[in-house]
Amino acid sequence: MVGPARFATLHTCFDLGVVDALRKEPGLTAAELGPAVGVKPEALEQLLRLPVKEGFLAQDPDTGGYALGTLAEVPDKDLQRVLTFMGMVKTGMLRQLYWLADSVRSGSVVGLKELYGFDGTMFAAAAHVPEVRDAWGPLAQNETASVYPWFFRSFDVPAGARVLDVLGGPGLGSIMTAQLKASPGLRVTTFDQPFFEAECRRNFAAQGVEEQCDFVAGDALRSLPGGYDVLLLKHFVDMYDREDVLTILRNCRQALVPGGTIVVLAPVYPEDITDPADYQADFFPAYILGCVMGRGGLQPVSTYSSWLEECGFEVTGVTAKDPADIPPDAIINRVVITARRRD
Amino acid sequence: MVGPARFATLHTCFDLGVVDALRKEPGLTAAELGPAVGVKPEALEQLLRLPVKEGFLAQDPDTGGYALGTLAEVPDKDLQRVLTFMGMVKTGMLRQLYWLADSVRSGSVVGLKELYGFDGTMFAAAAHVPEVRDAWGPLAQNETASVYPWFFRSFDVPAGARVLDVLGGPGLGSIMTAQLKASPGLRVTTFDQPFFEAECRRNFAAQGVEEQCDFVAGDALRSLPGGYDVLLLKHFVDMYDREDVLTILRNCRQALVPGGTIVVLAPVYPEDITDPADYQADFFPAYILGCVMGRGGLQPVSTYSSWLEECGFEVTGVTAKDPADIPPDAIINRVVITARRRD
Repeated sequence: MVGPARFATLHTCFDLGVVDALRKEPGLTAAELGPAVGVKPEALEQLLRLPVKEGFLAQDPDTGGYALGTLAEVPDKDLQRVLTFMGMVKTGMLRQLYWLADSVRSGSVVGLKELYGFDGTMFAAAAHVPEVRDAWGPLAQNETASVYPWFFRSFDVPAGARVLDVLGGPGLGSIMTAQLKASPGLRVTTFDQPFFEAECRRNFAAQGVEEQCDFVAGDALRSLPGGYDVLLLKHFVDMYDREDVLTILRNCRQALVPGGTIVVLAPVYPEDITDPADYQADFFPAYILGCVMGRGGLQPVSTYSSWLEECGFEVTGVTAKDPADIPPDAIINRVVITARRRD
Repeated sequence: MVGPARFATLHTCFDLGVVDALRKEPGLTAAELGPAVGVKPEALEQLLRLPVKEGFLAQDPDTGGYALGTLAEVPDKDLQRVLTFMGMVKTGMLRQLYWLADSVRSGSVVGLKELYGFDGTMFAAAAHVPEVRDAWGPLAQNETASVYPWFFRSFDVPAGARVLDVLGGPGLGSIMTAQLKASPGLRVTTFDQPFFEAECRRNFAAQGVEEQCDFVAGDALRSLPGGYDVLLLKHFVDMYDREDVLTILRNCRQALVPGGTIVVLAPVYPEDITDPADYQADFFPAYILGCVMGRGGLQPVSTYSSWLEECGFEVTGVTAKDPADIPPDAIINRVVITARRRD
């Protein structure tokens, strides 16, 4: 019952600049801090009760002055990552979740329709609505920076291989494959909807990989081009329901040469649905159904593995991040599943 | 970070009728339950992960069928009270909290402006906007039913006294005083803005207390009528900032005969701001500043007591509810403070 209020109160303390002000000048009272952040001291005292209760801030019982509490120990890099995530929750989820039941019933993101008159997924909305793009862009950059280096260490690309990056958007996956998995004769193709082609080719040229990289337009639910040794599926099997995932996986099998490899990067639920240490069930259903797609959702590794087997693959490996590399604020638990096309 | 998503997911499970359906027919699978509640089975499986994780629902590992878990033990009366509260959070807070920082900066409820074009408090909006009234009405009824009987047991009214119910709205406080504190010569007056008068007098007549009860119109921040033995201040000192509360208390002192009694019903913060068992700091600042008033907020008993002393009162008693009478879902902790006008 207090979830939305807690979120909004803590985010607002950062949003108003209270934390920055106290970092610069510890010990300010509400009477001093209020004018500094443009808020009446009485309202500020109210807002700061929760961060004081939680120990994020400390309040001197004699002077009433505030200072950073446990927040003083959080490295700026970590704090910025959390605030980026919270900014996405505020802009991309808080209001949209009012329509979660409607989104689930209709299989579409009703919040995007109500707020922006936009009929489609969050990814499509981000291409057209500045506020949506501003909410998700920084998060996507953070995710890419923290996930892609690990992802590309998690699988091998044979020398001279042909690689297809399925739904590769503006080409980052192909560029990183060309750079990190370089070998004589390596060719990488980004496959996605036609409106990504121009941006993608510009990105290839800017990174100097236009010789090794190409773009092919199409719809993964219909068919994929053929003859590839390695297929990359990054961050999208969780955006489709079972039947669509199976269709895509069958199309992937057709696109691979016999013995070829499919590499799936996806967030996964724990096998034990009641695992109290895993927060993905607290986050993803509302996020994917109510804010991003209106359909789809994570599965545990065992389900993705059985779907791969069902579509003619043999699972050859599951790689999780080293727990030491997972920051304590991480909600998302991704794995890389590799599988070989059975003959 | 998961607060809004958790809230929306759990509320949506009730909103879709999932809990009712499983109460009637335990063991339904997602494939059976989905059509019953008008949702695709895949989306339902996603939504139900959180209640299963939390133990509210149970899932059979063999059949995949769902049944009530700990929810089966919750009496319907308790569940309905929680759902009424959650309904208010959804309609009255979830979206409005997007504008919490703006509300705090401007000292007004920006969410009501953005959503309904309404400039004013939630109480005023409830009189004009059906959606706002529908969100708050059932909550107000629940609150009245659970709080008023206890409140009226917490203080004495001398026989034949003159009682003023300050900001008494449509007259319920006066009616209950006339009924529960009846004595020969008892006279009770509701004091509030003039637009309450007609409704208030209708309520007096309907309850057969029009002989003992009267209505006087005015503004408590300017002045109150005089000559009263007992003043009731129910649920509003937390809606004003300090200076306004002091003004009202000074006006209250003028309205009382020497030795007269003021009775203040208010939610209060614990004296220890870091008390982890008290959830009011998690709720009230966002609620009062962002959704109800744009100003004000709770204080601990010690602060209200010192304000009363400062305005010429002597605190004579503080009554809290018997812990056995407080349901486990209660966020709000109210007290009744009685004080005597010093000569």
